[in-house]
Amino acid sequence: MKQKTVLIAGGDGYLGYPLCLYLTKKGYKVVSVDNLSRREWVTEIGSHSAIPIEDRDYDWETVYIDITKYDTISSILRTYMPDVIIHLAEQPSAPFSMIDVRHAVFTHENNVNGTLNVIWAMKEYCPNAVLIKLGSMGEWGCPNIDIPEGFFEIEYRGRKDTLPFPRQAPSYYHQTKVHDSNNIMFACKIWGLKSIDIMQGPVYGSMIDEVDSEHKTRYDFDAVFGTVLNRFCAQAVIDYPLTVYGKGEQIRGYININDSMRCIELCINQSLEKGEYRVINQWTEKFTINELAELVKQESKQIGFKVRINHIDNPRVEKEEHYYNPDHQKIYDMGLKPRKLKGIIIPTLKDLLQYKDRIEQKKDFILPTIDWKKGRL
Amino acid sequence: MKQKTVLIAGGDGYLGYPLCLYLTKKGYKVVSVDNLSRREWVTEIGSHSAIPIEDRDYDWETVYIDITKYDTISSILRTYMPDVIIHLAEQPSAPFSMIDVRHAVFTHENNVNGTLNVIWAMKEYCPNAVLIKLGSMGEWGCPNIDIPEGFFEIEYRGRKDTLPFPRQAPSYYHQTKVHDSNNIMFACKIWGLKSIDIMQGPVYGSMIDEVDSEHKTRYDFDAVFGTVLNRFCAQAVIDYPLTVYGKGEQIRGYININDSMRCIELCINQSLEKGEYRVINQWTEKFTINELAELVKQESKQIGFKVRINHIDNPRVEKEEHYYNPDHQKIYDMGLKPRKLKGIIIPTLKDLLQYKDRIEQKKDFILPTIDWKKGRL
Repeated sequence: MKQKTVLIAGGDGYLGYPLCLYLTKKGYKVVSVDNLSRREWVTEIGSHSAIPIEDRDYDWETVYIDITKYDTISSILRTYMPDVIIHLAEQPSAPFSMIDVRHAVFTHENNVNGTLNVIWAMKEYCPNAVLIKLGSMGEWGCPNIDIPEGFFEIEYRGRKDTLPFPRQAPSYYHQTKVHDSNNIMFACKIWGLKSIDIMQGPVYGSMIDEVDSEHKTRYDFDAVFGTVLNRFCAQAVIDYPLTVYGKGEQIRGYININDSMRCIELCINQSLEKGEYRVINQWTEKFTINELAELVKQESKQIGFKVRINHIDNPRVEKEEHYYNPDHQKIYDMGLKPRKLKGIIIPTLKDLLQYKDRIEQKKDFILPTIDWKKGRL
Repeated sequence: MKQKTVLIAGGDGYLGYPLCLYLTKKGYKVVSVDNLSRREWVTEIGSHSAIPIEDRDYDWETVYIDITKYDTISSILRTYMPDVIIHLAEQPSAPFSMIDVRHAVFTHENNVNGTLNVIWAMKEYCPNAVLIKLGSMGEWGCPNIDIPEGFFEIEYRGRKDTLPFPRQAPSYYHQTKVHDSNNIMFACKIWGLKSIDIMQGPVYGSMIDEVDSEHKTRYDFDAVFGTVLNRFCAQAVIDYPLTVYGKGEQIRGYININDSMRCIELCINQSLEKGEYRVINQWTEKFTINELAELVKQESKQIGFKVRINHIDNPRVEKEEHYYNPDHQKIYDMGLKPRKLKGIIIPTLKDLLQYKDRIEQKKDFILPTIDWKKGRL
């Protein structure tokens, strides 16, 4: 079989960098595209990655461009003619998008314009490629009914149709993902593009199986860029009380970083029909925030850490008690054998211990300073 | 009762300008905000308004600013502290947004960023004002079930919820309206803003009852900025065959420009609760394109015009035969007494006769030159 060329937009990020490594080791021809802006955003808010990434190696082709400039991304597609484009090149933080109007507009321009450029360049230069786009489970919000994977058949006033499931995003960042989903769905319809739109739950973990010392991913733990479980693990390591927002009964579906890599590879090898827009809910286990905190506390205990849990005012506007039952059958149908969260916490804590000083250095950025109602506190 | 201050963003446009006139005559304090970019866009594609607008008068306060610059729109809100903001300041053409990636991105930046600026400035400076935002019936697409006004109660797998009705927009322009709707709904939720989001059908008509010779609105008839019935009337006047796209069985809900003004005034006087996001489907009569063409043909005959009808290849990707049954009860509940389309065609044709030369001058822009699949032909 011909080696597939996979272009990864956002190949310097938390998921993008290990994905480049993972797919390179699996024999794909990887081309990474990034302008390193994620690094700048984290610097802007005053924090840094617990795992240092300044001296990382790239054993794959790497191009430093900004996909919000159409000419640059289109010339890259023309040059490499990828079989698959994995689009992770977005501003990924909900709080960052809520700082002020400048950050909200910036997040829109970066994410929505970037995606428009990618789909337009695909139409022009590689209309048969598959776009794998990283969306978010957050796009669905927390409806009081089950969440299907993208579309649902409904009966309304005696008539039936299959419609896109309504999206109720909880931040301007999540809204940009919704806008992207809508634009991509439309592009598939009018231009016959093929796309898998991944609604991914919060990812956790500091490393993938294939990692070596030269190829570690970044690990954010601050209130702006750290996802909740990663933040809890970093807090445990420096004896900083775990910060649970509000009641802590918010339920989400989580996924291990290894499973995220594997799911994306499974997506690469799906065959899509012309014009197909497929939505996948990519998560493996559901937890409340309280359950996550309790798990981190219990597992920390086994290796001698004492962990405290603090409930703090919720800086977000969100339901703190709610129904949550999203489908996620497609990842299993593709062949994923999921990992359990329980097995990963202790290895993550041990890994993070080496970076304890770097976490301590930036511990002032762990408490939330961006409020949904008030902006920057 | 205190005189209400109404800020109209887009006060130089097809609807915005007569709305300024209408509301001024009705006793509101009107502040118009516009950067005249609609004029530039029409010039860019080579056309012009049938009714000359270069020398129009403004009997109300007029500020020339660009709402995509946050500082300008926020300073205007701070200065005038409007009771109501009517936001019409968007790039309004579907074909314009489909020309190429530059126009698609521009439409996003103009519409979505502008709306983000408006809602953010409202939150900061006039959180109790009501935002009346012009969306489009196009946001819903053409589902095979009834279209409610914004939200619907559904049962799915044995559970119930009231959810936003799914939106399936048929162009990047319409997508920007969907993005706006999502962002506004979210702003109402987190900041307690009040908004009426008007899903308006295509508007027709060359004048409102209150018009005088110094205050005529623009009238576009080209394939990019002319709405279908206005284009047909202009075609009839210069003996140019009516251009029906495809089969012509596409159904839409239309509204007279007088009724559009009246509906917006009715919205101004609604009282909304803090955080309320209300959606209104603003249209009065449903027609297929074929029915519209036939009506124009018949009424033209009565005043001695011979009208031919031509079916041409559809430049859009859309269903040409479909179910279409959107609710529109709210405008009647507010008190609208609708006008019939049948009564307006002959007066419009007679009005347009004075501008026959200007229509002739730009008749090369009547045939579509922008294709959904291929961009600019």
